[in-house]
Amino acid sequence: MGSAYQYDRLFAFVKHIFSGIGCSEADSSTAAVSLLSADLRGVDSHGIARLSGYVRLWEAGRVHVTPDIRIVHETPSTAVVNGDAGLGLVVAPFAMKIAISKAEKVGTGWVSVSNSNHFGIAGHHAMMALQKDMIGIAMTNASALVAPTFSIERLLGTNPIAVSIPAGEEPPFVADFATTTAANGKLELLQHKKGNTPLGWVQTKEGQSSVNADEIKNGGSLLPLGGDREHGSHKGYGLGAIVDIFSGVLSGANYGPWVPPFPIYIPMPESMPGEGIGHFFGAMRIDAFRPAEAFKSNMDNWIRRFRSAKTIPGKEKVLIHGDPEREMENERKRSGIPVADTVLADLQTLGKKFGITL
Amino acid sequence: MGSAYQYDRLFAFVKHIFSGIGCSEADSSTAAVSLLSADLRGVDSHGIARLSGYVRLWEAGRVHVTPDIRIVHETPSTAVVNGDAGLGLVVAPFAMKIAISKAEKVGTGWVSVSNSNHFGIAGHHAMMALQKDMIGIAMTNASALVAPTFSIERLLGTNPIAVSIPAGEEPPFVADFATTTAANGKLELLQHKKGNTPLGWVQTKEGQSSVNADEIKNGGSLLPLGGDREHGSHKGYGLGAIVDIFSGVLSGANYGPWVPPFPIYIPMPESMPGEGIGHFFGAMRIDAFRPAEAFKSNMDNWIRRFRSAKTIPGKEKVLIHGDPEREMENERKRSGIPVADTVLADLQTLGKKFGITL
Repeated sequence: MGSAYQYDRLFAFVKHIFSGIGCSEADSSTAAVSLLSADLRGVDSHGIARLSGYVRLWEAGRVHVTPDIRIVHETPSTAVVNGDAGLGLVVAPFAMKIAISKAEKVGTGWVSVSNSNHFGIAGHHAMMALQKDMIGIAMTNASALVAPTFSIERLLGTNPIAVSIPAGEEPPFVADFATTTAANGKLELLQHKKGNTPLGWVQTKEGQSSVNADEIKNGGSLLPLGGDREHGSHKGYGLGAIVDIFSGVLSGANYGPWVPPFPIYIPMPESMPGEGIGHFFGAMRIDAFRPAEAFKSNMDNWIRRFRSAKTIPGKEKVLIHGDPEREMENERKRSGIPVADTVLADLQTLGKKFGITL
Repeated sequence: MGSAYQYDRLFAFVKHIFSGIGCSEADSSTAAVSLLSADLRGVDSHGIARLSGYVRLWEAGRVHVTPDIRIVHETPSTAVVNGDAGLGLVVAPFAMKIAISKAEKVGTGWVSVSNSNHFGIAGHHAMMALQKDMIGIAMTNASALVAPTFSIERLLGTNPIAVSIPAGEEPPFVADFATTTAANGKLELLQHKKGNTPLGWVQTKEGQSSVNADEIKNGGSLLPLGGDREHGSHKGYGLGAIVDIFSGVLSGANYGPWVPPFPIYIPMPESMPGEGIGHFFGAMRIDAFRPAEAFKSNMDNWIRRFRSAKTIPGKEKVLIHGDPEREMENERKRSGIPVADTVLADLQTLGKKFGITL
């Protein structure tokens, strides 16, 4: 249950809150755009539902609202950015812009980021490259909820990867997914519904397979994409590891089990080897490879061939990555963004603190 | 069943065959090293077992043995290479060297390749970057055996991704995996044993789940990593699509269902939109991000933490990507490379044609 709100109204609310904690006018806007891109695209777990969590990070002194986000090392095609504990929602677009600017000059740009925190949805940042006829890549590590194959310890986050690829007449290809069988948001949805998970999503703290959506609270773990060894979980574990290393180890952020958690009630890991959480961004100019029009025409052909493939009985069509989220965005821009009652209550409490009602 | 052969003996044999079809001395060596890296690392499906297949491609006029492999477009950090229908085993190292050389100059190098064919194992090419203290990336598209989520048509190859990452005292992290639940080689192994597959590896030509290892021969398909929608197959499909687009669409090679098959008895696709098959390579200099020694020290910490994680009862340890293959390589360099009887018979026939015995 819940009510639907127009984007502009939510935007004004979110911007007001970020301004309220001390962010600049520009940063408040950037953060609101990043955050609400999740709600628009239907990833409700990563959007406005997390707003009060960001505020709690600030209250706990873990977010700087006037950060000195800066390049600490660079080459013509690379940079490392220190986010100075700024909002990931602001640090990420800063870093992605550097990747795009380097791609303009030398064909591609690659930026690893330390000392940041939760950046919202990866796809939003990757998509910044599209308007420049570039392929965009965004990934981030996250606090450990995932047990590598054969492990009972949680050592990796859900570590998402997003890749956006421009097309011509067709809309862009935009993949954005956690490197686990199921994203944590889907698990939370089942927790609210008191439902069971399919096998292969979670394991108990002893490493037995489980269908209990509350298993994480019991010390269990999410499983890497693949679920178990026989179904390729070592591949999901490998992907999560690559995201962790590109985001955390390459930048000097924390990695593996040392990535700081988003909820402030979870204690910080001990002996942290780096600063904050890490992200990794890439931008590749299409015409650094071949003429953009030729590429886009082939992408249209690719997309149309896949979309028109013969389907399993009962399935309407083969989906192109980005289609469901774009349709959701169009629908929500028109009809408003649903806000669940529990989230709304949380936002009203937050609004009171900062002198705004929703 | 089979016999074990020392690496040097197999190398001399393979090199002789490639010379026999007209490759230069240097190309024959390069191709033999690429091919046999699969046997050394335990990926028997991609090594010497395929030698006669490469020769058949040459006999069918689909491989040029004196190709004009060339850069057709470049920027400081990118290039597109046209392989001129050369052996993928030779084209891939050529392209990876360009990626490495660009990384030396501007921090990273990215090379998309058209007009190539089967390049052996991706990991071998990615690992070329290690000796330069670089992260190496290699991927390739392949002829369509995989049905995207909800499709009954085969539209993607097993499209592997390899990423190699240097460490300090620890050996490097080397992930190399097909973006399907199970690689085709594992399926072939079960076919020989007349065994069943686990659920989630293959589907029938009508799109029903199946455990029949011969399902591909019946018109069925391999499944993307994840297996089905509920277990995240859209993520495996997305990964396979990204590999296909980076390798095929970005270079002007074929893509999707139009990628030419390796076995010459399978008819070529109609209305092919590009040239040959496509690869994609990347090299990122570690010190384009941070001092290599600091990175490597963190990588050692990463590897040791994961390797020492508490395990599920009955499992000895959490594996680091690259460990099993490196152990296999050490063992096979010592004790020889096993060659199955059927492969041996095939090689003896081939040897007779080219005046060499194994």
